[in-house]
Amino acid sequence: MSGEFDLIARHFSRCPPRDDVCLGVGDDAALLRPPSGQVLVATVDTLIAGVHFPEQTAPEDIGHKSLAVNLSDLAAMGAEPAWVTLAISLPKVDDRWLYAFAEGFYALAARHRVALVGGDTTRGPLCITVQALGWVPEGEALRRTGARPGDDIYVTGTLGDAGLGLAVVQSRIQVDPAHREALLARLNRPEPRIETGLALRGLASAAIDISDGLAADLGHLLEASGVGARVELDRLPRSDAVRLADPHGRLALTAGDDYELAFTLPPGCEADLARYAERLPPYTRIGRVEAVPGLRLIDAQGNPFAFSHRGYDHFRES
Amino acid sequence: MSGEFDLIARHFSRCPPRDDVCLGVGDDAALLRPPSGQVLVATVDTLIAGVHFPEQTAPEDIGHKSLAVNLSDLAAMGAEPAWVTLAISLPKVDDRWLYAFAEGFYALAARHRVALVGGDTTRGPLCITVQALGWVPEGEALRRTGARPGDDIYVTGTLGDAGLGLAVVQSRIQVDPAHREALLARLNRPEPRIETGLALRGLASAAIDISDGLAADLGHLLEASGVGARVELDRLPRSDAVRLADPHGRLALTAGDDYELAFTLPPGCEADLARYAERLPPYTRIGRVEAVPGLRLIDAQGNPFAFSHRGYDHFRES
Repeated sequence: MSGEFDLIARHFSRCPPRDDVCLGVGDDAALLRPPSGQVLVATVDTLIAGVHFPEQTAPEDIGHKSLAVNLSDLAAMGAEPAWVTLAISLPKVDDRWLYAFAEGFYALAARHRVALVGGDTTRGPLCITVQALGWVPEGEALRRTGARPGDDIYVTGTLGDAGLGLAVVQSRIQVDPAHREALLARLNRPEPRIETGLALRGLASAAIDISDGLAADLGHLLEASGVGARVELDRLPRSDAVRLADPHGRLALTAGDDYELAFTLPPGCEADLARYAERLPPYTRIGRVEAVPGLRLIDAQGNPFAFSHRGYDHFRES
Repeated sequence: MSGEFDLIARHFSRCPPRDDVCLGVGDDAALLRPPSGQVLVATVDTLIAGVHFPEQTAPEDIGHKSLAVNLSDLAAMGAEPAWVTLAISLPKVDDRWLYAFAEGFYALAARHRVALVGGDTTRGPLCITVQALGWVPEGEALRRTGARPGDDIYVTGTLGDAGLGLAVVQSRIQVDPAHREALLARLNRPEPRIETGLALRGLASAAIDISDGLAADLGHLLEASGVGARVELDRLPRSDAVRLADPHGRLALTAGDDYELAFTLPPGCEADLARYAERLPPYTRIGRVEAVPGLRLIDAQGNPFAFSHRGYDHFRES
């Protein structure tokens, strides 16, 4: 870990302290005390300017999003987040930019009691890599592999908002000005569904976070579980803005960056989850797992709906 | 963690399996079982083409070095490495490049029984961030803060070779052709001093890895410990090539990228370390910790030696 981290360490001094951090930023590495009886959950994600967020994105939003996308992966495992490291490359030192970035990062970290325990700062094109570490009791992690025929399929929140927000930022579409701010918030400030992930421990048979679009990510879950599914387009939870812009549901199926969870519940488990419902963001049943592999979409008239786009792939065009 | 990681996951399938990896690459996050009675050690470092290695560096070497610099941080804490994640951005998919990168990464990982447990691949300027996780028994970690007046100061290996290698690559200096290959190996294939770090547990009062040059990094250790030191330039361990190119020892003091360890031993501990000496890379006593803050350098004639360069700082010029 580099001494250059002084540079931004001072911007992050307000990150919440945790008793289990024996040694944070400032030595060659951090020293962290594990809880007993739990399994460590580790994930890493990179955001690059112009690829993962528009160049003009506000630094507060970049700070929030770079942490949020990683916490979202922990949520999808049912993990409780604990610690993160941050590697950031910057074209130049810009104290105001860093301060604002840290504001966004810190506010989300504080809300989930996550401590920043290390980092590295280098000069280069704007690129942020966060690694998040969390804990889940042995045997209770949510994997992609446990979905079984007959399980119900759910998603949290609403789908397609971030994708519509991106289209708005890029002036590819006009929306009702009343919807604009909420769509941009969904694009720039995704909310990792940590509480839902915790509630799903011991209940959900499988889970995944939706970063590349429902069709792509639910597809990964189904493939990993060796099953298929039937999903009713009409049930996909959509905001008014998304319903207006895309009445057929294609956006809700394929747009990325929503960071909602998709999960499967065995028959009879819905009542168990409903006990937590008041404290959780809304979730909606959208279909059912079937034995035959593949994702089958049904439109409002009960007819099969064909589509081809399978989510965003950074190397697709190459 | 992204599905795009399929791209390079296949190049890393030969990474050694470990019993403590419950779930590796392929889900939203990895699941890792901690050993009991130990503290988690976490570090992260980024390498950027043209900043941390010359653009023309062979991909095998980049793979080796991106892991080595992180394992070096674990070594400096006395930690035993266990798991790493890899975030890599690439201008384009190049299977041959990735294969060679993985070769270098894998060979070093296998030697230290490190498992790659997750990653993210994105399109962008060549930039590699590795996070390394390891373990150290509670209370035995080597920190920067424990050096006390009267402790002896040691370094492993030889100093200045990587810096001289860089000067050779950049055609800033000519060396005896017989030395060229060894210097380039020191630049491109640093050896993390894991075994030395393990042997120093319970013995060394402080340790740090030398990434930015001895003067800068020993300076960090002294400052963190609230002490100073007297170092004899003539004692700095140098290869023949470095002695020839730089008879006064300035290179050994200031050149970065050697990834040797600097450590302090309380009086009377040398014999304890010597018991391991046969199995360890060589180490050399270079000076002594003193109460008065600051790093005092003494030349071969016993006179004070003045110098100003304090190591490489990525943002120094800005």
